[in-house]
Amino acid sequence: MLTIAVDAMGGDNAPECVIEGTVQILREAENRFEILLIGQSEKVRPLLDRHDTEGLNLQLLHAPEVVEMTDVPAIAVKTKQNSSLVRGLQLCKEKQADGFVSAGNTGAQMAASLFVLGRLPGVLRPTIAAYFPRLDEELTNVVDVGANVDCKPEHLVQFAEMLTIYQRDAADIEKPLTGLLNIGEEENKGPELLKQTYRLLQEADSKGKLSFIGNIEGNDILSMKANIVVCDGLVGNTMLKFGESIPAFLGSIFKPSLKKLVASGKLDPASADIAGTAFREIFLPFDVEKFGGVPFLGVDGISIVGHGRSSSRAVKSMIYMAEHMIEKNVNQHIAEAFADE
Amino acid sequence: MLTIAVDAMGGDNAPECVIEGTVQILREAENRFEILLIGQSEKVRPLLDRHDTEGLNLQLLHAPEVVEMTDVPAIAVKTKQNSSLVRGLQLCKEKQADGFVSAGNTGAQMAASLFVLGRLPGVLRPTIAAYFPRLDEELTNVVDVGANVDCKPEHLVQFAEMLTIYQRDAADIEKPLTGLLNIGEEENKGPELLKQTYRLLQEADSKGKLSFIGNIEGNDILSMKANIVVCDGLVGNTMLKFGESIPAFLGSIFKPSLKKLVASGKLDPASADIAGTAFREIFLPFDVEKFGGVPFLGVDGISIVGHGRSSSRAVKSMIYMAEHMIEKNVNQHIAEAFADE
Repeated sequence: MLTIAVDAMGGDNAPECVIEGTVQILREAENRFEILLIGQSEKVRPLLDRHDTEGLNLQLLHAPEVVEMTDVPAIAVKTKQNSSLVRGLQLCKEKQADGFVSAGNTGAQMAASLFVLGRLPGVLRPTIAAYFPRLDEELTNVVDVGANVDCKPEHLVQFAEMLTIYQRDAADIEKPLTGLLNIGEEENKGPELLKQTYRLLQEADSKGKLSFIGNIEGNDILSMKANIVVCDGLVGNTMLKFGESIPAFLGSIFKPSLKKLVASGKLDPASADIAGTAFREIFLPFDVEKFGGVPFLGVDGISIVGHGRSSSRAVKSMIYMAEHMIEKNVNQHIAEAFADE
Repeated sequence: MLTIAVDAMGGDNAPECVIEGTVQILREAENRFEILLIGQSEKVRPLLDRHDTEGLNLQLLHAPEVVEMTDVPAIAVKTKQNSSLVRGLQLCKEKQADGFVSAGNTGAQMAASLFVLGRLPGVLRPTIAAYFPRLDEELTNVVDVGANVDCKPEHLVQFAEMLTIYQRDAADIEKPLTGLLNIGEEENKGPELLKQTYRLLQEADSKGKLSFIGNIEGNDILSMKANIVVCDGLVGNTMLKFGESIPAFLGSIFKPSLKKLVASGKLDPASADIAGTAFREIFLPFDVEKFGGVPFLGVDGISIVGHGRSSSRAVKSMIYMAEHMIEKNVNQHIAEAFADE
């Protein structure tokens, strides 16, 4: 039976939502796996006691420290060895758990995953991807989104190779398409880094390690041309944060506009409500909760991070993602792919 | 009297919209300046003859070649010396015109501006900025948006300095604020390029050349923190194109959604129309037509490029922008600022 370590203290809604998600998933999955809930027991226990946990494969493990969202990653990892974050990853390292999920400080989890679990053999730099909105049921993952800057061509190619394996094995996309994010479509466009990466991606394609569709541009990301959009972490991080700011920006124009229309008698309140709901729904493709989180790819273990705002539903999705990655042997396949590098 | 050379052949709606904008602006500005309309006279003349140009300071100059949107910039500039683009810039170089505007191939105009006009003394690399949406009347300009990749720290700082002069002189922003686009706010964040740029921007600030507010992130662009957002052309170009793709993406969800609501009887057609109009209006801050175009900053002359989709209104805005930049001595101020570098 698989054992998943869950950071009870990670995220803006922790520990409540984490506890809720954990209890729900064990019922839903009929105790298919065991969950080790890690956190400050004086905080977690009373909340846990409000739930009926009778017969659930659930253990609470005490960790006195907490890595806060505001902590500086490298420092937190060194000074908070007894945090739920570091303890959870150590349980993976010691094979007492098969995977770890947290909705806490992403930078700290990346640093701790790298520090505690280490890299898979052959992996130069572990990475983290993000989901971008799509109108169909496939995925658009942009990689890297901030874990790695000053990337070299061989790093970018490995990101694409790892994500190809992940999407194929764990997300059931038969042939994930990789695009290189650049300022133009032509092969000779863009910075030196991307010209070299272009050639390495062609090579990787010819070896069957991924399916390269060439350069793509910023306006291609939402057009579903590629499943995997490769870029340096500076570009990916900027795009991700810019994209995340758009719903609120547009809402701040549309909502007052509807109110004015109602106030002026041009629109009845009921219709305005309906239009408002339809408006909110256009951002459903931006909802990352269905995925729950993203794995750190390239670390020697399963470490999945969720958005700070994660709900109980997101926590559940993350745990299922951990289970799925383990069952599908994603890490083993990554190690095999890089065995010759 | 100022003389503005206008590329009659540049843009998706050329020459019609260019002719229209030119005739309109001369009437509107009461012949305050003279316009040299440059293009294939066999195409432009018949269209021009449909307008009443009696008494307008307007000359049509024949240029047999046209740089197409699909032309490769470096090649077009060399092989199409008799194009409206190259001829227009040559008129500036020869002091027969004080400025040039075009809504044609941006890359070709950048290359031709650099080739024909050359750089202002002290300028390392001319640049091009873009307008990002704002909820107030000020500006957010992201610079560079694709003219320069593989930038060095001193390039990025010059971009910010030039745009500071432009915004202060030509856009009446008293103290334009510059933010460095990075993956985090802390000084030591991000790639080596940006760490070094951070220090140079601090120096430039202490010399009074710009007002540096530190690192900003992708989600700060729409928040109006900075008037000038500095980044390498790869990042700016990607952001710009990504942003431009968002209205259509969201519209493709909202419009069918309204239709469904009408079909199911939940919303009456008139209310749906009103909601649809309100929805389209949320993208008004994305409308760059009011600015018309952007100047190539750092070239030794006035060269303004508009969006390929430019309307006659945009053409007018570009011509006014050229007039304004000349009157405000923007280029002279840039040359003075860099005289000691």
